[in-house]
Formats: sequence, structure tokens, C-alpha cells
Amino acid sequence: ILKTPAKEKENIPDESAGGKRIPNGGNAAKTREDFELAAIYVSDAQYNRNIYFDTSPQAVRLYLLYHHWILKMLLYFFIVLNLSLAIFEEPAVLPLPTWATMLVELFCLLAFTLRMGHYAKVIPRDKFWKDPKNLCVIATLVLTLTDMVIYGALKAADCYGVRWSRVLRPLLLINVTEGRQLRRAFRSIRNALPQIFYVFLLFMFSILLFSLMALKLLGKRDLKTIDGKPYFTNYMDIVFDLYVLVTTANSPDVMMPAYNANVGFAIFFILYILINTYIFMSVFLAVVYNNYKKYLKEEVRQLVRAKRHKMVRAFAVLQEQREEGGQPVVTRNNWNQLIPLVQPNLCSARRQLIWSVCDDKNQGFLDKVAFIQLADLLNIEVIALKPRSHPFLNLFPNFYQSAPSRFVCKVVQHRGFVIAFDLIVLVNTVFIGLDEKNPLISNSEWVFLTLYLLEILLKLYVFEPRAFFSRHNFWNWFDTIIVVSALIATSVNSALGSSGEYTSLLRLVRVVDNIQRFRTIINTLIRIGPAIFTFGQLIVVVYYIFAMLGMEIFKNKVKFYDDSSDPDKQYCGNPLLKGTAFANLNYCKNNFNNVVSSFVLLVELTVVNQWHVLSSGFVTVTNVSARIFFVIFHITVVIIIINIFVAFVLEAFFLEYSDLQTSLEKKIEELNLAMEQERLDNSLVNAMETMDNNLGTEESPTPSRSSMVFKISSKRYRTVDALLQRIFEADLAPEDLPENDEAEAQNTGSFSNPTFGSGPA
Amino acid sequence: ILKTPAKEKENIPDESAGGKRIPNGGNAAKTREDFELAAIYVSDAQYNRNIYFDTSPQAVRLYLLYHHWILKMLLYFFIVLNLSLAIFEEPAVLPLPTWATMLVELFCLLAFTLRMGHYAKVIPRDKFWKDPKNLCVIATLVLTLTDMVIYGALKAADCYGVRWSRVLRPLLLINVTEGRQLRRAFRSIRNALPQIFYVFLLFMFSILLFSLMALKLLGKRDLKTIDGKPYFTNYMDIVFDLYVLVTTANSPDVMMPAYNANVGFAIFFILYILINTYIFMSVFLAVVYNNYKKYLKEEVRQLVRAKRHKMVRAFAVLQEQREEGGQPVVTRNNWNQLIPLVQPNLCSARRQLIWSVCDDKNQGFLDKVAFIQLADLLNIEVIALKPRSHPFLNLFPNFYQSAPSRFVCKVVQHRGFVIAFDLIVLVNTVFIGLDEKNPLISNSEWVFLTLYLLEILLKLYVFEPRAFFSRHNFWNWFDTIIVVSALIATSVNSALGSSGEYTSLLRLVRVVDNIQRFRTIINTLIRIGPAIFTFGQLIVVVYYIFAMLGMEIFKNKVKFYDDSSDPDKQYCGNPLLKGTAFANLNYCKNNFNNVVSSFVLLVELTVVNQWHVLSSGFVTVTNVSARIFFVIFHITVVIIIINIFVAFVLEAFFLEYSDLQTSLEKKIEELNLAMEQERLDNSLVNAMETMDNNLGTEESPTPSRSSMVFKISSKRYRTVDALLQRIFEADLAPEDLPENDEAEAQNTGSFSNPTFGSGPA
Repeated sequence: ILKTPAKEKENIPDESAGGKRIPNGGNAAKTREDFELAAIYVSDAQYNRNIYFDTSPQAVRLYLLYHHWILKMLLYFFIVLNLSLAIFEEPAVLPLPTWATMLVELFCLLAFTLRMGHYAKVIPRDKFWKDPKNLCVIATLVLTLTDMVIYGALKAADCYGVRWSRVLRPLLLINVTEGRQLRRAFRSIRNALPQIFYVFLLFMFSILLFSLMALKLLGKRDLKTIDGKPYFTNYMDIVFDLYVLVTTANSPDVMMPAYNANVGFAIFFILYILINTYIFMSVFLAVVYNNYKKYLKEEVRQLVRAKRHKMVRAFAVLQEQREEGGQPVVTRNNWNQLIPLVQPNLCSARRQLIWSVCDDKNQGFLDKVAFIQLADLLNIEVIALKPRSHPFLNLFPNFYQSAPSRFVCKVVQHRGFVIAFDLIVLVNTVFIGLDEKNPLISNSEWVFLTLYLLEILLKLYVFEPRAFFSRHNFWNWFDTIIVVSALIATSVNSALGSSGEYTSLLRLVRVVDNIQRFRTIINTLIRIGPAIFTFGQLIVVVYYIFAMLGMEIFKNKVKFYDDSSDPDKQYCGNPLLKGTAFANLNYCKNNFNNVVSSFVLLVELTVVNQWHVLSSGFVTVTNVSARIFFVIFHITVVIIIINIFVAFVLEAFFLEYSDLQTSLEKKIEELNLAMEQERLDNSLVNAMETMDNNLGTEESPTPSRSSMVFKISSKRYRTVDALLQRIFEADLAPEDLPENDEAEAQNTGSFSNPTFGSGPA
Repeated sequence: ILKTPAKEKENIPDESAGGKRIPNGGNAAKTREDFELAAIYVSDAQYNRNIYFDTSPQAVRLYLLYHHWILKMLLYFFIVLNLSLAIFEEPAVLPLPTWATMLVELFCLLAFTLRMGHYAKVIPRDKFWKDPKNLCVIATLVLTLTDMVIYGALKAADCYGVRWSRVLRPLLLINVTEGRQLRRAFRSIRNALPQIFYVFLLFMFSILLFSLMALKLLGKRDLKTIDGKPYFTNYMDIVFDLYVLVTTANSPDVMMPAYNANVGFAIFFILYILINTYIFMSVFLAVVYNNYKKYLKEEVRQLVRAKRHKMVRAFAVLQEQREEGGQPVVTRNNWNQLIPLVQPNLCSARRQLIWSVCDDKNQGFLDKVAFIQLADLLNIEVIALKPRSHPFLNLFPNFYQSAPSRFVCKVVQHRGFVIAFDLIVLVNTVFIGLDEKNPLISNSEWVFLTLYLLEILLKLYVFEPRAFFSRHNFWNWFDTIIVVSALIATSVNSALGSSGEYTSLLRLVRVVDNIQRFRTIINTLIRIGPAIFTFGQLIVVVYYIFAMLGMEIFKNKVKFYDDSSDPDKQYCGNPLLKGTAFANLNYCKNNFNNVVSSFVLLVELTVVNQWHVLSSGFVTVTNVSARIFFVIFHITVVIIIINIFVAFVLEAFFLEYSDLQTSLEKKIEELNLAMEQERLDNSLVNAMETMDNNLGTEESPTPSRSSMVFKISSKRYRTVDALLQRIFEADLAPEDLPENDEAEAQNTGSFSNPTFGSGPA
């Protein structure tokens, strides 16, 4: 898109302001380079990219290249490759020789270094070295290289070596420029830590206090656990047992000896669970939730300011003085040249809509405040609905408008139609639960499929097919695909005479899909998908670190035997485990012997149940201090990360229920209503004959502006940032705008590149 | 307080408006009866009592009697007695003959009937019969009596009888007039049910879908569970197993056979847990939270309206016309007569403060809007702080103001003093963890105690003792009691040479108590105490019903043997349990053989862990349909009630963090600042000599108004209603006032006595 900018003034890099351009103030005609620079600013603002690049022509070219999707994909490919090396390294799922993995790792390091070098060329040098995330990446690269050299040397000398730099690998995922969401999540956690820490201290004190009470109350009663061991006699063991009880993993077993001895002791445990499990865990959720929200709000505020700052810059490039001493503005003409550069595939109707929303006073130009909205407007997905008539109406107008046909349309559009099919679905559900081998039931499947097919055909008869299958009608597509594939699968099965392995699955999906209420819940779940993906990355980072540590500490201490005849299978190949719950429950495959088992084991520990049995297994094969590993994992993942996850889901659902409109969306709606009113007025004037006219012009290449209705695309957000901004919009000052240059420079200073290393304290 | 009102117009009961008095509009002098009626309205508003009593003199007298604390206590005594009959009835903890428990129950029924009769006399007859909670109580009483007659007859004829009416007993707790909080909680749950139901359906569909996938994926692989049983071959068993997996109780055991066969199957289970345990459970919390909040807000809005309505009535009784055609007002004089009737023990300074807040324009009278605030103002607990000088300053002025003494004061008030004692506490904590038998350590306890005592003495030296030990300084009292009792206990122990059984407990409490940050968290927990009490009642109601059902279904199927030599102990006295996990884990005492064990068992089921083992135990001794009992219990308690509990704790903590002031509290603060300013001005005018003067007048019987500072008592709320109102105050219209009589009548209709049976749909 962009040609080399050749204008002289572009050649002076304005390093001090991080690439801020000082406009020449006059009404000189804007060059193509100006528009291109402005377009970069606008799309940076639109996608919340926060890089203060040089405005020199080379730097701008490099900057565009830096954001090229192929380079980004390559980067992620190398990150994933680097992380997945754990599969091939000792202890390996698929062992490869050390030189092979080392070679691949070297390639990865080279790729990261190149990417870093590229980034260094894009932004001013002093910015580069001030940014903690760059320093972190460089340190990771250097440390990894050092570790590889040492490890290689030790291997060559046949000594024992530890590849400790493997725990650093996920840091690359956090600290690449694109890992913004992930960095933000980590920063939120770090900022919430002090508050969590105090509650945690109190919580630990409570456990210590209860443990002491338990020791005094039960320690001298000579009770025995179910294994015949002394019960509640060692203080540190009691503390651990009661910590496990907080996670509920050993309830009610830990209580049983005392309860069997005297009913009254149950009061102690019930009180303990009430205070430590229910109240403290709720308080943890409250504290994590509250702090997470608070800091995220601060982050989003900075994000919005940075975005506005970018837009102010784009404005500065494009502005013109309408009259002497007046406010600088952006003219319609300049705007029309800018938009295709920002979003080439935007249809003219949408461009018109965006302009109407910005220029709501119909002045023909935009001032700064109006121009700044553009970035948010581009993020609102708007669907242009063209009122089209059904093709049957054109082909067989008499038939389609006859009384029976009209009756069918009325029936299909009636609420009862939906209810009737809900009932059919319910009956279908009952049939699915019944025995499949009964011929009556397997044949009934044909009836249901026919009914579902009939439903789709009827809908196609009533609604315009292109509208029905438009890109945004996800559920119609989904319905049809499910029914058609179920039809094909059932046909194939009955032709082959096989028992229909997976068709019932399709049928069940079909059932869920058909109930309207479910769709709204599923829509919400789909909408928070990207955010859940960020949590997925977060979890992978934490799991990876714990897996690497766990593999170093526990590898091959517990073995799994596929061959069930092996006598060692009884105790997972480790005599220490003989007779333990770990071996008795056949948990041998839950081990740290490779990265895949480690991840599965960590999931099991996250689920918490039986984690005391799992951890005690590893404590048995090493020593008591191994408990620390498992307790720290529990605190990190279950108390902090899972609570943040819950907080996020709660927040997203509350948003869904409250159904707030952003101010921009409101404007679009208003504009839309006005347009629809206009159309109505027109049609009233043109009276009846317009109907056929409109239907006739449907295929004409120039649809009249007034025949178009816009709809905001079912609130789906393109970016997580947009979702976050929406969550906190009510609390953000509507026009918190850096008004003068000094303020801008200050903001640039304090808000540039929020990174993992340097958030607000 | 109240004499018989003898005025004639009081004798006309105004039944149609539920006892609303039509004021005679004029400025006739108010009688004592007028003030008393107004006082009843005000205190009804203050405590959110919502009874539309007759205003006839007998009815008013009966109404006051109805609210007498002795009668209320008696009612609760009989309710508790009635509920606790379960301890003595078959299956009993302490068996009593049937005639004895029946007799006591008859007494209880009589008491409830009398209370009901009393209530019927207080409110108009048509109101009484329209109120579902009265009908509910009457139905319960009639059904219970019927059941008792039938059961008695069957017993007399030596037939088997079931006391089914026992499950109805908790309904009395809900439906007595005083059970407002509990009714509200139930109403909130009921209103949230439709939304929860849809999510639950989707959740069940998801489980069914995954079960079908599991059956197809794993059913034909001939895998075996750890007990050697076929793995995942029966659809209904898979559904149950996967439902249990949602609660995480059988993780990872249910996965192990598949995981051992192939690592890839772990993906299925991880996906299942992610979707059903993490996402769906979060969605449940979100839905429950959101609906609970929404309906509670609606309830609180009604509560506030009803309260304002009461205040409007009180105003109508007391109002006077200041000038012809002007707004009716309440004069200062009438006010002064009203307040002692509402709250006899209010000091004159607080009365003055309340007047100042209401009459903020200093007009000498109150209009309707200002008068209505009174009920809320009386609920704000205000402490009057009298600035007092230290007694040492009076006794030894020279010594106390000497340089060393001033230095001590400065040190004690310094931040470092607190930090120093935090460090001492930390060292103490370490010492507590060490072995108690070491003489060095047991003696060190004396050092710590001395230090703590020194801390208290120093504080008493610096701060005024009466202020230090004032009624509202909970923590100072607590500190001193703990230190003194630890001192006594340690002395007694060392005198007797015993090992100090419980002193370390006191020491640990002392440690927690000493860290400032902890106190704020504990304060919050104390503040939400009353609300937790409501949840306690809720839980008792639900547990009681399930315990009664459980005892009918499962009594004596599982037996516990105290005598460990009994061979039946191995299988809990039921051969069916031989070799089951239930018997192997020695869960025999977890049974439904009496009401106490039932409650403990239900707590264990609430904690969820091992609930599949517990339920499968009872399934083994009865049949598979017993699972329904346990699943319904899980859905009711864990998915709904516990989530509401979490929602409430979250909401209370957010309130604590946001630290909103109500508008009235803000007014008090402002007034206070003005007063303080006034005092400052005075002291500046009087210059230095006032200091001694003020100190001298400290003991004078008439403290000058300007020497008084008010403080809002650390945000502790007298009633749950006040807390709720505060939570939702931001969302309530500030002056949503019923302006005319028709509106009032309407409101009376729609808001009268919100009860369990008739909430908003």
C-alpha cells in the first residue's frame, strides 16, 4: 500500500517526542505520505498498538513490515517450536538426540534475535533500551545461550547437567510485542498481590490457630487414622492436613477418627470449614476480583488515553485551518482519502455511516474531538441490511402471494412454530436416551431428521435465502450444517448397515442448538472466547514453568508400566510407594516423566481433588519439603489465577445482562432510526406502487442510501481491548483528551508501552 | 410507655386504607395519643416493620404488645423447641416416649396458634386472610395436627406410621412475622430460579452430550475400573460419573482407566472439566449473583418505599399548617415531644445533631421530605466524642508535661511503635511454633507477656483511659482481655507446674489481633455477621427438610459400632456394604440414624468431596433411585445457596472497598466539620488560656455543644436492612416519595407485607 515517503520534512526523525510530527500548521495540500502516516496512526489506535516508531521513511517502512502478518505468524511459530522442544528433550515423550534439539533451539534464538533487531530499528534507540520487556527478552536470550553452552560442555564431558533455562522460555511468550493481553493479565495479578498477601497471612494464621487447637484437643487422645497411624500428633502434619481440608480434598476422611471418637469434635471441623473454606475462599475471590477490576480499569484508562493520543497525532497530520484563528479541522475530502488507506475493504455505505456519526452536526468537517472517535467507530462491526424481497415473489408472484402461501408464512413466523419444534426436540432427546438397537427407535431418527429438514425448508420459503444465509447468521449456518451432516451420516450408516456410531452426537448437538434460550448463553460464552484464550496462555506459562521444575525434581521417581503383568506395577516401580494410597489408586501414570504427563498432572492438581494423595505420593519418593512445590502451585493457580478467571467470567456476564450501549453505538442506532423514518416517509409518499418498484430495483447496482438499514453486529468484539473498554466505559471520563502538546508529551512519557516490567506501582 | 388512647376519632378503624389516619388538617394541639401513634409509625419505619395495624386503641395496644420482646423470645423459644423435637423423636439421639414428644409438640402448636390469634387481632381481618404467610402458618398447623392424630392412631393400633409433617416445621421459622430476612432470601432464590433453570438445562445437556461421547469413545474398549468393573459401558452410570466429576469429587480416579489406556483420552476429560466445572460453574455464580442482586434491589426499593410511606403517615399525624395554603410542616416543639417516645435513651446532643441534619436550612420546622429522613437517621449509630484530658495531666501536670513524658507520648504515637510491636509479634509467632518443653522457650513467654502488658500500659499513659476503654473501642478491650487472661493462665500454669494446655491459643489470638491490617479484614467479617446469620437460618431450614427426608429413607440402614471388636463394624452392620469404599473408608458414622448425624452428613455433602462415596454407600443399601436425593441436595445447596452466599460476601466486600458514604452520613460529616471549625475559631479567639479552661470544664455537668465531636460508629449496621439499603443506595431514586393519597393507597396495595408466598413474579 505504502510507497516510500520522499518528502523532506519526513526525513527529520523527531526522537524526543517519540516520533511525534509537528504539523506545518498551514493548509498546504496533504501529500500521499501524509495520508499514509495518518492511516498508520489511525490503525495503530484502532488495534491499540502502542509503539512509538520513528517517522523517518525507512523506519515507517520497517514499521509496516514489522506488523506484517507473515512475520508475526513466523514469530509465533518459533515461540511454539521453542516451547514444544520440551517434548523432545530429556525426559522426553519422543526422544531426540541432544544436538538436534539444541540446533532447533539455536534457530529459535536466532529468529527471536532477528525480530528484536528489527524492533530496535523501528523505534528510537533510547526508547528501546528503556523498555523492560526488551531487556527481559535480551536477558532471556543471553541466559539461554549461556545455559546451552554450559550444558553442551557438561554433556561432552559426560557430567550431569541441568537445562535450567527452560523455565525462562515462557517469558518470551509474555514479552514479545504482541503479548500485550498476557502482560496486562500478569501486571494485574502482580498489582493485586499485596492485598492478597494480607488476606493470605490472616488465612495462614487462622490455619495455624486451628492446628494448634486441634493438637491440644485431639493430639493426646491416642486416636488412630484408618491406616493405623497416630492421628493429629505432629503440629506440622496437622497444619498440612488442615491446609488440605481447606481445599476440601481430604474431607471427610480427616474428620472421621475424631468424629468416630466423639460426635462433638464434628463442631470443630464444621467451624473450620465454614471459616476457612467458605468465608476465606469467598474473601479471596472478593479481593482478587476487586483488585483485578481496579487495576484493569487503570490499564484500560491508559489504553484509551494512548489511543486518543495516536488519533491526535493523525489529526495533527491531516488538520487544516478553515478560517484565520479558527480551530483546525479535517475536511471531508481528506477524510475520504484517509479511510481507504485504513480499511480498504470498507463499503461506501458504511463509510457514509461513519462520517454521519462523526459529523453529527452536519458541518462538512470534523474537529479534533469528532475525529478521535474514528478509531472506536472502525471497531464497531456494522452490518448493512439490504431489504430484499423473496425470489419466489419475483418468480411466482401470484402463487407466493396467494392465501395458502401467506398462511404458511404466518405460521412459520408465529411463536407457536418455535415452541412446536422445541417440543419435537424434547421428544427427540428422550428417544436418544433409549436403546439404539430397537428398530422402531432407529427408524424414528428418519422422522426427526425429516422434520428438521422441513423446518429449514419452510424458513427458506418464508425468509429471503441470502439474508437467511448471510455471513452473520451463524446459527442458521450451524443448523443447516448439522441437519445435513446428520442426514448424510444416517444415510451412510443405514446403507452400510452399521450401528450409527457418531450420529447420536450430531443429534444431541442439534437438540442443544434448537433451543433459543441456550443460544444466548452460548453466544455470551463465544463472545468471551478471546479473553479465555488469554487465560489459556496465562495458564500455559504457569504450567510450563511448574512442569519444567517438576520434571527436574521428580522425573522417573514414579514409573508407569503398560505391561500389566509386571510385578513392579503394584507400586509404580518405586518400592517406597508400596501400600500408599497413590499406588493403591493406580495413579502411576500421574508423574513428571515427560512434559505431557506433567501437564495432565498439573491439570489434576488444579482440579484439586485428591491432590493430597498425588502430592503425598511425590513426597514419599522424595522428602517432606516436596510439599512446598505442591502448596505453591495450589496458591498460584487455584487461589489466584482461577479466581481471576471467575472474576472475568462474572464481569463479562454482568455486562451481557446489563446490556449497556456505548455512546457510539447509541449514535448509530439513532441515525438508523432517522434513516428508517426517512424511508417510511418516502414509501408513504410513493404510496402503493413503490412496493413493486423497490422490489424491482433490488438488483440495481446503485442501491439508494435510504433503502439501507444498519445493524450492529450482535455485539461481537473484534479485540479483547474493545471488550475491556466496554466493560469499564461507564467509569471512564468520556473526553479525557490531551489538549495541548505539553500534556501530550507527559502522557507519552508515563503511558508509553505499558509492559510487564513497569506497570503502575 | 403508651396509655390507652381515649380520643374519639381514634375509635374509628380505617380499615380500607389499612389503618391509615386521615389528619384533621388543622393546627389543633396534638394529644399524647397522636405522638404515641406517630412514634409507633417512626419506629416501625426505623426497624422496617411492615404491619398495617388497626389504629383503634385496643389494636394499637395489642400491636405494641405483639412487638414486646418477651413475646418474641417466647415465639422463638417455641420454634426452636419444635425443631429440636427431632432429637427426641424416633430415630432419636435421646429417645423419649412418643406421648412426651407429642405433648410438647401440642404445646408448641398451641403457642403458634395463640401468636397467630394475637396477630389476627392486630391487623384488619381482610389483610389477615390475604396474607399468604398467615395461610401458610395455618395450613402447617392444621396439617401437623392431622398428622399427629393419624400417627397417634396408627401407633395405638401398632401399625407403621410416618411423621411426614416434620418436614413442614421449618416453614414456621420462615413464615413468622419476624422471619422477614429469611423470607426475602427465599424469595430472591425463587425469583432467580427461571434463569438458573435455563443454564442448568444447558449444563445438563452438556453432560448428556459428553456422556454420549464417552460411551462411544470408551464404552467398547473393554477397560476396567480399579475395582475390576467394566468402565464406561452403561449410559446412565456415565452420566452420574460425569455429574460427580463436575463437582470434582471423583477426579482424577474416573479418568485413570482411560488415561492409562491412552494419553489422548486425557484431552476429553480436560475439556470436560474446563467446560463443565470451570465455565459452567462460573456461569452459575454469575447468574445467581446477577439475579439475586437484581431482585434484592427490587425488594430493597419496596422496603424503602414502605418505610417512607410509614414516615408520611407519622408526618400526617403530626403536621401543622404554618400559614394559610402553605405546606404542612412539623414544628420543633412537636419533634421534641416525638423523639423521646421513639428512642427514650437518646442523649440531648444526639437529638440536637439529628435535628440539625434534618433541618439543614435552619428554618425551625421540617417539611415532609426532611421529616422522612428521621427513620434512617435514627439507624446511624453516632458516637459523641468528648475531648477529655488525661487524668495524669490533672493530677501531676508538671510531670506529665515534662520533656521525658512528652517524649514517651511522641514515641508511643509514632508509626515505629506499631512496627516494633509487629516485629515482636513475628518473633513470638516463631517461638510458638517451637517446642514448648524447652525451658528457654517457655520462659520467653514471660518476656513477651511483659512486653504486651507494657504496650497497653504505655498506651493508657498516652491516651485518655476512658476514651481508650470506651464502648466502641472493641479492639482495645479485646487486647487487654487477651493479655490479662494470657497472664493469668501462664501464672496459674507455672504455679501448678502444668504444661500450659491452652495458653498458646491465647498467644496466637494475641498475634492475629496485633497486626493492624488483619483488623480491617476481621472488621468486615464481623460487619457481615448478621447477614451470615440469615444464611445460617436458610441452611438450617434446607438441612432440616433434607434431614427429615433422609431419616425416613435411610434410617438404620448403616450402623456405627462403638465397640471395635464387633465383626459387623467392618461393613457398618449391613452385609450389602461389604468391600465398598464406604465401608473401607470407615464412613459408618456418616448416616441418617439421628438428626445430629444427619446434619453432619449433610455438611459433608455440602463440602462435596467424597460425596459420591457417601451417596453410593446409601445407594448400595437401598437402590439406584437414592441418587436422586443426593443430586437434588447438591443442586439445591451447592449450586444455588452456596453461590448466593458467595455473592453476598463479594457484594459486602466490594462495599467495604468502595467505602461509599450514604447521603445522610455525608451530611453528618459536613455538620461535624462545621462544628469543629466553630470550635477552632473559638479557641483561636480565646487564645492560650482556654486550654486550661477547657480541661477544667471537662467534668462540668453541662458540656458546651461546641466541645462535642460526633463520629459515625465504624460503619456498623444495626440491621441487615440498613446494610442492604446501603449496598443498593446508589441505584435507588433519592426521593421516590408517594406524594398523594391515591398513590399511597396503591403502594399500600402492592407493597403490603411482602411475604414468602407473594413476591413480585
